[in-house]
Amino acid sequence: MVRVGVDENLAEELVAGFPAEAQIVRIPRQSSDVLDVDFWIIPFARKNAQETFRRLRGVKVVQSMMAGIDWIAPWLPKDVVLCDGRGIHDISASEWVLAAILASLKRFPLYRDMQTAQEWRGQAAETGGFLNERGPQIGQYKVLGDDLAGKTVLIVGYGSIGAAIEARLAPFGVNMLRVARSARNKPEVASVGELDKLLPQADIVVAIVPLTPETEGMIGARQIGLMKHGALLVNAARGPVVDTMALVEALQGRRISAALDVTDPEPLPQGHPLWSAPNCLITPHVGGSTPEFIHRAFRFGAEQVRRYIAGEPLENVVSDAGY
Amino acid sequence: MVRVGVDENLAEELVAGFPAEAQIVRIPRQSSDVLDVDFWIIPFARKNAQETFRRLRGVKVVQSMMAGIDWIAPWLPKDVVLCDGRGIHDISASEWVLAAILASLKRFPLYRDMQTAQEWRGQAAETGGFLNERGPQIGQYKVLGDDLAGKTVLIVGYGSIGAAIEARLAPFGVNMLRVARSARNKPEVASVGELDKLLPQADIVVAIVPLTPETEGMIGARQIGLMKHGALLVNAARGPVVDTMALVEALQGRRISAALDVTDPEPLPQGHPLWSAPNCLITPHVGGSTPEFIHRAFRFGAEQVRRYIAGEPLENVVSDAGY
Repeated sequence: MVRVGVDENLAEELVAGFPAEAQIVRIPRQSSDVLDVDFWIIPFARKNAQETFRRLRGVKVVQSMMAGIDWIAPWLPKDVVLCDGRGIHDISASEWVLAAILASLKRFPLYRDMQTAQEWRGQAAETGGFLNERGPQIGQYKVLGDDLAGKTVLIVGYGSIGAAIEARLAPFGVNMLRVARSARNKPEVASVGELDKLLPQADIVVAIVPLTPETEGMIGARQIGLMKHGALLVNAARGPVVDTMALVEALQGRRISAALDVTDPEPLPQGHPLWSAPNCLITPHVGGSTPEFIHRAFRFGAEQVRRYIAGEPLENVVSDAGY
Repeated sequence: MVRVGVDENLAEELVAGFPAEAQIVRIPRQSSDVLDVDFWIIPFARKNAQETFRRLRGVKVVQSMMAGIDWIAPWLPKDVVLCDGRGIHDISASEWVLAAILASLKRFPLYRDMQTAQEWRGQAAETGGFLNERGPQIGQYKVLGDDLAGKTVLIVGYGSIGAAIEARLAPFGVNMLRVARSARNKPEVASVGELDKLLPQADIVVAIVPLTPETEGMIGARQIGLMKHGALLVNAARGPVVDTMALVEALQGRRISAALDVTDPEPLPQGHPLWSAPNCLITPHVGGSTPEFIHRAFRFGAEQVRRYIAGEPLENVVSDAGY
């Protein structure tokens, strides 16, 4: 028997597909009991993860359902195998990124605000407001939304989710630029050293790197300053990947726009200048939270447990590379 | 010389590419003078279109830059050839539809409202609100947004824009259903008589028909009643295609959600119940208003004028069929 540790409240249906050789150990949230667990599926709640780990004995594998493992790696002993959730977030994360890009270009935040005010200000009445620095008047026609067609999109941290984003962007007719830790081909991915050279070419910059010491603050004041006037920065990675105060300054200066599913700090406190910065859409770290996601995650978890029991190599083992 | 009539304020750059044999006649908005015009590019402003037409002599062709010609056909003499803007809206309209679908599924209106209130309510704190009827709790995981993957999308009025929508939906992994005036194959399009049968199968219903006597009110109380509980109705056609009061009732009863770029009446007046109906995103008829759209439109216009001068058949001639 392999003892698979899961959160005490995990829905039964999510572990129903686990191998018969797996003994499900439900780990109480509040307890000081020590439990024997071979394969720990770490809960999404990060707060008590390290504390819970201390109550587990014999853990050989920790399986995270998150793409980022920055909240586990620092305290996990080196002899425990850590597997991340690479792949299981492709659908929900890439869909959130497409939604964020399109909603920003089409100015949905502005229109939602107008809707709340019960104001119909369309073609004839646009007088500024959201993105007014970017709203050129062409002939007599005010621009009330941008096309995605023809735009250049730079993916910073091109991996599994990045490829899923690219696949969904393809029919829109965009130009793609890609950056990852190391350069490669097919498709052409530039190394992170090329970032400064590529930033000025992009209309849309999507950050989707894991949070590591190398990526913390990698979109700072200099990188934001290299972006095109009016470009859109999408952060679907982790808040600290972007320098928050540099971003606030660029937004307040109406130099760029932004769409953020993550912020630094998180949760963003009342009164933080990011909340009210112009041309910025914020969602509270919900990109991955779809009903089907959790099923995809635990189908993957069941497969990993099966591989472990069968003595097959596990997928998604985290190396030091990070990304 | 062929006299091509355009609005007096049309930007010079938009007619710069017209054939040398075309004489551009700028038509004053306020005037009682009669002008000789062979080929009239009708302005986007509908209000005075018929009145302006009365001041034009010798018009053989009217070229609209709108996909819908419901605002022209009723008063235009039968011997004048009417060409619509089929095709030139494909990009901007299909992009708006994708933005509307994704923003609705990902609950961006809710998150925009939270942002305005400076409230971070994510995974741990969701307690209802927007789409709360559709937010099942799975295990301990609240559902804060839906996947587009796996959804069934019904396009009502499958034509040029419908195909552009389908192309952009393809990488998301959705199932497609299509309805048009007449059934056809490759892809399989059902006739409008099948609408009632298809509505209960769709998670997302996109109306993109032109407004004709046949399509007015075609999404009425019965059709809305046939939609799945929690389904999304997207209106990118014309306001009167949907029965507004039936829609308001369904929204208030939290049976469906909606995303509307058009309403009936339009503009939607202050205090109209649609403004504050739950689970409804409204943009003020801006789907087509992108900077590049107007250039695409006049490139097409220049081609039409060239064809007219060369004696070639015009494109987009409106028949009685409507759609």
